Amino acid sequence: MEITKEKAARTITSKAGQMHQLITELFPICRSITGDGVAQTLNIIKRDIPLTIHKIPTKTKVFDWEVPKEWNIKDAYIMNSRGEKIVDFAKSNLHVVSYSVPVDRSVTLRVLKEHLHTLPEHPDWIPYRTTYYKEDWGFCMTHNEFKKLTDDVYEVCIDSSLKDGYLTYAEYCIPGETSEEVLISTHICHPSLCNDNLSGISVATFLAQELRRRKLRYSYRFIFIPGTIGAITWLSMNESRVKNIRHGLVAALLGSDGSFTYKRSALGNAEIDQVVEAVLKKRGVDHKIVDYSPYGYDERQFCSPGFNLPVGSLTRTSFGQYPEYHTSADNLELVKPGALEGSLQIYREVINMLESNKRYINTNPKCEPNLGKRGLYNMVGGDEEGKDFQFALLWVLSLSDGNRSLLEISKRSELDFDLISKAARELYEHQLLLEL
Amino acid sequence: MEITKEKAARTITSKAGQMHQLITELFPICRSITGDGVAQTLNIIKRDIPLTIHKIPTKTKVFDWEVPKEWNIKDAYIMNSRGEKIVDFAKSNLHVVSYSVPVDRSVTLRVLKEHLHTLPEHPDWIPYRTTYYKEDWGFCMTHNEFKKLTDDVYEVCIDSSLKDGYLTYAEYCIPGETSEEVLISTHICHPSLCNDNLSGISVATFLAQELRRRKLRYSYRFIFIPGTIGAITWLSMNESRVKNIRHGLVAALLGSDGSFTYKRSALGNAEIDQVVEAVLKKRGVDHKIVDYSPYGYDERQFCSPGFNLPVGSLTRTSFGQYPEYHTSADNLELVKPGALEGSLQIYREVINMLESNKRYINTNPKCEPNLGKRGLYNMVGGDEEGKDFQFALLWVLSLSDGNRSLLEISKRSELDFDLISKAARELYEHQLLLEL
Amino acid sequence: MEITKEKAARTITSKAGQMHQLITELFPICRSITGDGVAQTLNIIKRDIPLTIHKIPTKTKVFDWEVPKEWNIKDAYIMNSRGEKIVDFAKSNLHVVSYSVPVDRSVTLRVLKEHLHTLPEHPDWIPYRTTYYKEDWGFCMTHNEFKKLTDDVYEVCIDSSLKDGYLTYAEYCIPGETSEEVLISTHICHPSLCNDNLSGISVATFLAQELRRRKLRYSYRFIFIPGTIGAITWLSMNESRVKNIRHGLVAALLGSDGSFTYKRSALGNAEIDQVVEAVLKKRGVDHKIVDYSPYGYDERQFCSPGFNLPVGSLTRTSFGQYPEYHTSADNLELVKPGALEGSLQIYREVINMLESNKRYINTNPKCEPNLGKRGLYNMVGGDEEGKDFQFALLWVLSLSDGNRSLLEISKRSELDFDLISKAARELYEHQLLLEL
Repeated sequence: MEITKEKAARTITSKAGQMHQLITELFPICRSITGDGVAQTLNIIKRDIPLTIHKIPTKTKVFDWEVPKEWNIKDAYIMNSRGEKIVDFAKSNLHVVSYSVPVDRSVTLRVLKEHLHTLPEHPDWIPYRTTYYKEDWGFCMTHNEFKKLTDDVYEVCIDSSLKDGYLTYAEYCIPGETSEEVLISTHICHPSLCNDNLSGISVATFLAQELRRRKLRYSYRFIFIPGTIGAITWLSMNESRVKNIRHGLVAALLGSDGSFTYKRSALGNAEIDQVVEAVLKKRGVDHKIVDYSPYGYDERQFCSPGFNLPVGSLTRTSFGQYPEYHTSADNLELVKPGALEGSLQIYREVINMLESNKRYINTNPKCEPNLGKRGLYNMVGGDEEGKDFQFALLWVLSLSDGNRSLLEISKRSELDFDLISKAARELYEHQLLLEL
Repeated sequence: MEITKEKAARTITSKAGQMHQLITELFPICRSITGDGVAQTLNIIKRDIPLTIHKIPTKTKVFDWEVPKEWNIKDAYIMNSRGEKIVDFAKSNLHVVSYSVPVDRSVTLRVLKEHLHTLPEHPDWIPYRTTYYKEDWGFCMTHNEFKKLTDDVYEVCIDSSLKDGYLTYAEYCIPGETSEEVLISTHICHPSLCNDNLSGISVATFLAQELRRRKLRYSYRFIFIPGTIGAITWLSMNESRVKNIRHGLVAALLGSDGSFTYKRSALGNAEIDQVVEAVLKKRGVDHKIVDYSPYGYDERQFCSPGFNLPVGSLTRTSFGQYPEYHTSADNLELVKPGALEGSLQIYREVINMLESNKRYINTNPKCEPNLGKRGLYNMVGGDEEGKDFQFALLWVLSLSDGNRSLLEISKRSELDFDLISKAARELYEHQLLLEL
Repeated sequence: MEITKEKAARTITSKAGQMHQLITELFPICRSITGDGVAQTLNIIKRDIPLTIHKIPTKTKVFDWEVPKEWNIKDAYIMNSRGEKIVDFAKSNLHVVSYSVPVDRSVTLRVLKEHLHTLPEHPDWIPYRTTYYKEDWGFCMTHNEFKKLTDDVYEVCIDSSLKDGYLTYAEYCIPGETSEEVLISTHICHPSLCNDNLSGISVATFLAQELRRRKLRYSYRFIFIPGTIGAITWLSMNESRVKNIRHGLVAALLGSDGSFTYKRSALGNAEIDQVVEAVLKKRGVDHKIVDYSPYGYDERQFCSPGFNLPVGSLTRTSFGQYPEYHTSADNLELVKPGALEGSLQIYREVINMLESNKRYINTNPKCEPNLGKRGLYNMVGGDEEGKDFQFALLWVLSLSDGNRSLLEISKRSELDFDLISKAARELYEHQLLLEL
């Protein structure tokens, strides 16, 4: 017994460790919405799950947008007149504003400053900045280093390229009994930032690994996409497939110690909204539920009025609500192995409830069926659990009209979802329910 | 004046006394879900109201069930080796588990104990137990007597019979102006227990007696049925008639001092639900309103999803919520004459409100009608009641669209139901309303 | 700058003063539901706005009513035996019960008293009384004067006429881009009473003057009508036009210091109800919102079930809720210039919001449109207002499904209506919205 517990503890530690290890391996890569960094990232994930990689050419029309040029970068620095590299891309890929055009020139301090970004309120952190849709260049640095800059002539070099190429994304679909799909989407466009969003990538990857080994009712589609333009591109490429999506989650910000935040779909009371809320409540973890708003991550696209998919976003501390967000402090120390595994656990339970949350029709709706003759009437005096199970049988029979899900029956009856689910299986076995 | 008051008081006392007297007469009879006890009971009620008695043969298929064998019992006892009857059916019919098969044998104390039921927490009370759907036998006794049992050989005798026969129930329909029905159902299957449910039988009987003498809008159907199997049998025999039922109440547990409990129909906001709630509120009596659940009395069958009738349950202290429930302490002392009459009073007021709670259409919906030319505009300064009546006229005109009932108009206007009802009659007399 | 402020202050003062001046001019006229006083009143208003005056003959059938006889009065008094006029119509037109039939006779004190009305609780005030629908006569006087009456023979003279003639009302319609109308109704039947309702007349007149000079989306119909019978007559004469009314307000009681009261339309959540509530909330003024009831002013007719128009009533201290109501104390001191102008300001803002509160359809509903390429993506760090404007753009795109108004989007997004409205105009300019 002692031994089994210890072994279980080791296994748990090991899963948490593996989740953090994947983040550690992906951390140094310079990702953006296009470019080699994305491809490298997907190749590493592909060792664990059989991703299909899609490459969409620059200028492809995707709804109101077009696929941008591909951006790649080899090196970048700012050098002072003494030949010292005072900012060096080799030390952190956050130093260069993402999508900076190539530059190689000498500039005065005044001109240089127009291209520098710092965080005066966090003088030791490097900010993360992008210029995807405006051709420009820039560097990010700590405010402490910035304050040391003297009146000098600086050589600035960004050895980048911005030309026609591809936007790359990947997907992996695990087929279930039905073609109805659960969509798990995570963004892969951030460079050396851990919580946003290597944590999402790690949770999605490990969740997919688990689900591969299970018998599933729904099909599960995992997509690894650059933020915004990636979601728009995926939706544009898969418009006809969207009708199969029954539930979905945008997975991000899952590695910090923060409590959970669930942002509802724009529908507001979709089954996924009910299920996530029920799981968080049942687990007794600190959490908050917020209504949909049209800013955040890729739920903005999935929930746009032309799609209005039942897709919510399940994160820990949410989008922009922690100081390290989009800075060099969102690093390998910010994300905790235990927090990653805790997030995976919640995602797993959400899926378990989705899988079980069926709708039935009572095949014998006129009066109660005779449970006794089927051996289902066992209410022995004093047996509280048995009594609750009897009640669960009666509630499921009473409310199974084909419209109410088991979760709704659980809420109405104030009986635990698992007990209701067990009662439904029992009644189904005795042909007292038809599954829808 | 003084004399009239006194006489009224005597009449009231007399009604309460008669209600208790009926219970006293019915108390000794050994009822069960079938058998002679039921027939005897119905014959006594038939003296007061012209019941029609129905006998349904054993094995008749009723939905998912079949009518059980008929059970009768002549005598039963446990005798010790000294020839002393230590448990004797003649003393209380609760001593025998209802539906016990015949038995006549000698048993050791160990074997006997497997067939004995007691209430250790109430050592002076005999529990009430049944074994309707499993052929078995047993005795119930006080725990104090049980503790005196010594290692001995006991003769156990149950002179019962369980064979093909009939399930008996009765009904009485009082025709009204319309074929729309109000159903009052009460169960008649309990042996010497008073609150559950001789009190329900008494209230239903006296209510039916009153209604016979009134001009009624609805037809009233009273049914006296064994619990569960009786309701199932009645529904099965009357499936085509069910469509006429507009409102219904399951009457039980109406004799104790407890405050009222109204359990809503499964519909949740049927007119009967609104009316009972309004009457209890208006009367200012202690009460609670609870949502439907699929356990309790025969509302379980009437509200089963295949029927989903607007039938609630109006009791005092509810099902299983008082210690004497299903024990020998539910006796002639537990039920009080005043409580019985108070229950009858509430039932009467519910029926009064149902009868008055009509829907009208304003025949003159464009602008206010000229009330003055009809002598309906009498708002004399300082006359609060006259003013409220004016308001009532205006509210009824304003809201009578054919959908809203007078009770709904009373709630919206915050004016008393009787005032609204009086205003509606006045407007109807002046042809300003059409009755629906 | 200083000068402009001062000038502005003078202009404001001037408007408030003009509003009060109009009331002062109208105050002495003896109005009733018919008669010359109404015509005189409308002729004065006509100097400011081009009223169309309608005269409807006595006995014209208007729904359940008919137009009453026309009432006019030249003089009236009560004279004691010493030849002193102890009550004199020339001093206050409130002294005569409106619609009193002619009388010229000598009466004892006892008989006289049957025709006198006073306010014992306010002994210095003269009450206002009418006898429109019952041929009768009477005088109103202060209770202090009443107490001085001695046993005497009094000559009572009412030099009035009650004969076939006309009911007079006026309307003024300001055409807008569409034939959809906003109705502003105010009653003109009260004699020398200021708050009720010369204040409503003044606010309606000045509002109409302002709107004449504006480009408007809706057409605005102002009606100046006698209470009750005037509204019934107008509805009867304009039954086919009523379908154009999209929103409406009954304007009255707008001159006292009291806080605002908005009485909802019978619909309860019409757009006018939402808009007035939003304006009062946004302005931060003390106010209360009350549900519709079928007593009050002419909303009773507009909201009667046969019309059920979206017409609310926006007053200050409401109908009958202030002591001076319907007494001689509702005079030129009770109404304040500043209060009148404050009321006008609220009406103006209600109209501004109605004009702006459009519904749009997102022309690009699949994913977000590319705001950047249209120069609409300017979220500069640290610019809170710019950020809120970005959010407003996204919310309008997200919720513009053709059903939701901008006000509803403002509530859902918790962003200011004007910001939402500005965002909608910007998106409309860029053809990202279609106007409905």
